[in-house]
Amino acid sequence: MQPTILDFVERKSFADMHCSVAQCLEVAGEWWSMLIIRDAFLGVTRFDQFQERLGIARNILNQRLTRLVEEGVLDKVAYSDHPPRFDYRLTAKGRDLWPVLTAMRQWGDKHAAPDGPPVRVVHKKCGKVAQAIMTCSACGEALTARDVRAISGPGDLDHMLTTNAAAE
Amino acid sequence: MQPTILDFVERKSFADMHCSVAQCLEVAGEWWSMLIIRDAFLGVTRFDQFQERLGIARNILNQRLTRLVEEGVLDKVAYSDHPPRFDYRLTAKGRDLWPVLTAMRQWGDKHAAPDGPPVRVVHKKCGKVAQAIMTCSACGEALTARDVRAISGPGDLDHMLTTNAAAE
Repeated sequence: MQPTILDFVERKSFADMHCSVAQCLEVAGEWWSMLIIRDAFLGVTRFDQFQERLGIARNILNQRLTRLVEEGVLDKVAYSDHPPRFDYRLTAKGRDLWPVLTAMRQWGDKHAAPDGPPVRVVHKKCGKVAQAIMTCSACGEALTARDVRAISGPGDLDHMLTTNAAAE
Repeated sequence: MQPTILDFVERKSFADMHCSVAQCLEVAGEWWSMLIIRDAFLGVTRFDQFQERLGIARNILNQRLTRLVEEGVLDKVAYSDHPPRFDYRLTAKGRDLWPVLTAMRQWGDKHAAPDGPPVRVVHKKCGKVAQAIMTCSACGEALTARDVRAISGPGDLDHMLTTNAAAE
């Protein structure tokens, strides 16, 4: 495989930031990873099918899949020994990315889908086309940015709330 | 400003994919953009403060801020004419990224926060530390990946559900 220029790009790793958003980006923030995860949720498991759907270079796809397996987001499971062939399947940790994917999808549906939503989801139990609404785990009310304030947690080793406006 | 190697990297744009996840990545999927948006939610508005908090090269930060302004996620508002100085503030479209950020944060808290959550949020109205739970807009029940099935929407010009496993 030819290395591409992408292979030589050094970027700062987010791994040493004490921020859970950065940690999520560290795993799922590569250009293609979230679309691989999207396709995994849609039932895609095979290298060639990811490749065809995403139109991504095979070496890049291989890197991204390998990374997602190393991070425990995908399992690589042999389905043929001769020749060796593998399925890539979401782990529980990978399935936990569904709210991230869903929030991204809904934002895109609202702000960047001129032809209407490409995909909708049906809640199997109630049978209705559903939006996922974020609600408070304590009281059940709907939550938006304006309804909450951030406070420092035990892992806030970077003093993330220390901003000019933190005292608002 | 010295151009960095990052300036020369060409990547496939997601803009021509008929997928709302890809459209969200197109806007907010740059390496740094989501952390800039995180800091904007924490009250950061000034270039120098973003730069200091993120430890990002000034030319890269400038590119990312410019992009987020062009995309309508941030507003650039002059707070001084001599010298010209600007605040960067979330627009309504930008604030709509809060569920994406929140879902990422909660995933990171669960899977990549060995010292505990760096940041917690308090629901102002009920006063409790809150997790954001995704619930069905139709019936109000909690939603996970296993509770829903994807169906094609009007904007599905790429036949996204055409996978081997779409008939499951």
